[in-house]
Amino acid sequence: MRKLTLLKIEILLIVLLGVLSSNKTNAQDKLDKSTIVPSMIKAMEWQEQHPIFAIAPTDWTNGAYYTGVTRAHQATQNQIFLAAIKTMGYRNEWKTYIRDYHADDVAISYAYLYLEMNTNRKNMVNLEPTESFLQKHLFEDNQWKTGEDKEKSILWWWCDALFMAPPVIVEYAKLKNDESYLDAMHKYYLETYNLLYDKKENLFARDNRFVWTGKETDIKEENGKKVFWSRGNGWVLGGLALILDTMPKDYKYRPFYEQLFKEMATKIKSLQQADGLWTTSLLYPESYAHGEVSGSGFFTFALAWGINNGLLNKDEYSLNVMRGWNALQKCQLENGMVGWVQNIGFDPRPADFDSWQNYGTGAFLLAGSEVLKLKD
Amino acid sequence: MRKLTLLKIEILLIVLLGVLSSNKTNAQDKLDKSTIVPSMIKAMEWQEQHPIFAIAPTDWTNGAYYTGVTRAHQATQNQIFLAAIKTMGYRNEWKTYIRDYHADDVAISYAYLYLEMNTNRKNMVNLEPTESFLQKHLFEDNQWKTGEDKEKSILWWWCDALFMAPPVIVEYAKLKNDESYLDAMHKYYLETYNLLYDKKENLFARDNRFVWTGKETDIKEENGKKVFWSRGNGWVLGGLALILDTMPKDYKYRPFYEQLFKEMATKIKSLQQADGLWTTSLLYPESYAHGEVSGSGFFTFALAWGINNGLLNKDEYSLNVMRGWNALQKCQLENGMVGWVQNIGFDPRPADFDSWQNYGTGAFLLAGSEVLKLKD
Amino acid sequence: MRKLTLLKIEILLIVLLGVLSSNKTNAQDKLDKSTIVPSMIKAMEWQEQHPIFAIAPTDWTNGAYYTGVTRAHQATQNQIFLAAIKTMGYRNEWKTYIRDYHADDVAISYAYLYLEMNTNRKNMVNLEPTESFLQKHLFEDNQWKTGEDKEKSILWWWCDALFMAPPVIVEYAKLKNDESYLDAMHKYYLETYNLLYDKKENLFARDNRFVWTGKETDIKEENGKKVFWSRGNGWVLGGLALILDTMPKDYKYRPFYEQLFKEMATKIKSLQQADGLWTTSLLYPESYAHGEVSGSGFFTFALAWGINNGLLNKDEYSLNVMRGWNALQKCQLENGMVGWVQNIGFDPRPADFDSWQNYGTGAFLLAGSEVLKLKD
Repeated sequence: MRKLTLLKIEILLIVLLGVLSSNKTNAQDKLDKSTIVPSMIKAMEWQEQHPIFAIAPTDWTNGAYYTGVTRAHQATQNQIFLAAIKTMGYRNEWKTYIRDYHADDVAISYAYLYLEMNTNRKNMVNLEPTESFLQKHLFEDNQWKTGEDKEKSILWWWCDALFMAPPVIVEYAKLKNDESYLDAMHKYYLETYNLLYDKKENLFARDNRFVWTGKETDIKEENGKKVFWSRGNGWVLGGLALILDTMPKDYKYRPFYEQLFKEMATKIKSLQQADGLWTTSLLYPESYAHGEVSGSGFFTFALAWGINNGLLNKDEYSLNVMRGWNALQKCQLENGMVGWVQNIGFDPRPADFDSWQNYGTGAFLLAGSEVLKLKD
Repeated sequence: MRKLTLLKIEILLIVLLGVLSSNKTNAQDKLDKSTIVPSMIKAMEWQEQHPIFAIAPTDWTNGAYYTGVTRAHQATQNQIFLAAIKTMGYRNEWKTYIRDYHADDVAISYAYLYLEMNTNRKNMVNLEPTESFLQKHLFEDNQWKTGEDKEKSILWWWCDALFMAPPVIVEYAKLKNDESYLDAMHKYYLETYNLLYDKKENLFARDNRFVWTGKETDIKEENGKKVFWSRGNGWVLGGLALILDTMPKDYKYRPFYEQLFKEMATKIKSLQQADGLWTTSLLYPESYAHGEVSGSGFFTFALAWGINNGLLNKDEYSLNVMRGWNALQKCQLENGMVGWVQNIGFDPRPADFDSWQNYGTGAFLLAGSEVLKLKD
Repeated sequence: MRKLTLLKIEILLIVLLGVLSSNKTNAQDKLDKSTIVPSMIKAMEWQEQHPIFAIAPTDWTNGAYYTGVTRAHQATQNQIFLAAIKTMGYRNEWKTYIRDYHADDVAISYAYLYLEMNTNRKNMVNLEPTESFLQKHLFEDNQWKTGEDKEKSILWWWCDALFMAPPVIVEYAKLKNDESYLDAMHKYYLETYNLLYDKKENLFARDNRFVWTGKETDIKEENGKKVFWSRGNGWVLGGLALILDTMPKDYKYRPFYEQLFKEMATKIKSLQQADGLWTTSLLYPESYAHGEVSGSGFFTFALAWGINNGLLNKDEYSLNVMRGWNALQKCQLENGMVGWVQNIGFDPRPADFDSWQNYGTGAFLLAGSEVLKLKD
């Protein structure tokens, strides 16, 4: 009798362990959609309570953050996000930051354009500063376009710029129904592509300091590989999703962006770590052996957007997206703060659970906004 | 013995059930005053952390909200409310919104005038924009006073306007000790009264689209009744309480406002639902069968004010006020957010637990501020 | 047997009581450093969510608060503090308040100067308003320097001023590497010292209304003693710590400030109450028999700074500092609010757990920032 009982208990324990461990194994491969919007709201609320910027509230850090808030509103239609954008816009007097040669300084206009196109309030948004900026940025000479600086030899000489200005330009072209803005964007986008895109790796060097020339002096990781910065490539791939989301389906150069998006997505998928995140140095994960949230957020956003919009195969990519999102959620503290965000920079550096930045919250919101739209 | 014990237990259970159920029945008819101020503070804190507006932070939505914050301070003398008003005023540079023909755009001045009259800081509030607005609004021609628009044929052509401008004018007349402002107000108030007040129903049509003429084309609810919008009448009755609170006791037209207040209060009392709230369509509660907080807040405020100021009989009205307040408190989430607020509009539409607006928080604060003053 | 057991229990209870009471006795004499930064962050977060000021966000109340935030950042290097300062500076457009004869109105510049000297962002801080203010304040005539007002007969005629302007001037002198600013400061500092410093008591009268002349008409506490206001002396001693922190070691008048600091510290140490705090009337603790947080915060800050910088003997002062900090922490509510802060004033008045002010939070942050640096 007693032996039998012990046997029963043993069997039960084995079954139980099986259940538990199978749960454990699969948790990161499942999506609990009910937690996404609450996570996004908490992230936004914490960020609104901790305003931050690099130089001014109109700068690129807020530009990236409010792009995330914008997409969060577009995905959820929850006015809690819209209210935050309106308050920001009003306080910023609908201004860009001041350097019209610098892509960073117009990133904030993505949110202004969203408001203009998605509310029926006349006379609320003042687009004049955005229009004036874009006019000068695209169609007038400036210190980079015409300058002598070896490192800063083209308008968008660093890959981050491909997130900062092009999505804004595509929105503006849509508002004005004027393809000439797309054409101007494409011209400068190609210059950056030609300078920084590594066709072997299907990744972008951050700027020409990191482009490999085959010389001994090329900057290398300690493992001998090229330096591909996670957030830098996140800017590009996330920016591509934003561009393609609005660019007309029949625009003559659209195939170029679709092709680039797919090439990079394939590569990025292959570089995801077991925990669902990407490390800050894409080809040298051992250097800082932890996931980094800003890059990972942009990648998760872009891959989910690719699935949702038919550019990526759902069967191939949905597991990556779910793992990415689940891992991003684990980087959010109970109070809403999104941690593990690398500080402002231009190459791989470490982060920790307590390092936060508004653009990291923006990447988190972008990811959530597309993961929410995944179909079962 | 055992039987006896069981019998005892049975009796005890019956008694206990009686106690519990009687508690349950009466809970909404009792007032726990200790919870009022904490509820009000939480509501204000949540709202301050979630700034929102329709067109600008100086618009009527903030006007109504900060009128609530103002009265909350007046009732509690807790500086947490005063600090919020000062910060708002300073950020708004003490401006009205821009359309001097539009009553909405001066509602925010109620809070500015409160600060001016209730702090001893010289040179803090700048009343110039308010003064300039009122001067033009009351004493100069504008597109509505002199216009051809059939719907917008008088200065205050919609009943909401009776909350937006008149209470501000009465405060300003007090500050300046100048009855000519009261006289000007009364002239325009009467125009609105004559156009929109339904003397059979003792309620206001929202604007002349909703006035019954007896024709087949009159707008009707599905049950055939007139459309009386809860918030629209809340604006009027709440506005009357604010007007009477400050209007001199011997002002020549005061009896008109007292009479109107009492007529409407009697009618509003009769339309309260069993749960303590008012539905968004006052005569067709079945259409959206749930209480709506902005209208209910204004009504609860006005009825409590009427009791506290001797215009309404305490024995007749206090149960309505207690039920109103208790039901309003149930619409507040744990985090402080006041829900069940109908969105911006002009006729009855549904709300839900998650629909919030700053003016709903304002109505909640107004209600709390007067319920707090109820004498036992 | 039973007796023995009872005896054992008795002994155990005695031992237990001993342990508990010895814990109780010593708790305030120990420092749990792990709680300091979380307390500081919570205090700052609550304050940021409840902005307040006396006349404007550029006024001395925010000046004192953001001086605390500044030192919190300096001590912790946690960007949560830096982000708050930057946001404040930007919203204030880097302005002082408007009266260039009034020390209060330049206190906010302490935070601007910190940003200028501690971030590598060019073109962020605009120091022009600060420079213009200091120029006029120190080197031009004004209504106090040259006026006829008996009470306001010198530039810094009230002791609070020694916190408001001198630390800013010392920072500015460092930035400009220009001793003439120190010399100008010293001239006015001496005037105040000569007018208000009571060399018998080693404390400052708040202004000349409180200076003892030996006449019958001298203002006295009910116990017959002189009126020495806790916060007033907190401004001076806290200000001295800030001055000495930056003043060059070889500056010709530095010994004067060191001497004054040590004299006052000795006296302040002797006036600490058993609970670790200082009462609002330093020589008449019975009048309002509770600790007051703004004064206590400045004293705790200054004593800790004195230990950390070798001006005070650690063995003599560290118990005072630990007791001070532990008691300050007890005045913080769970939500982060720092209570027991006396309202704006010029003489001893009571406070309670619910009375808060931004400068109280500033004093709390100053205290935490130096307690954090105590060596074991």
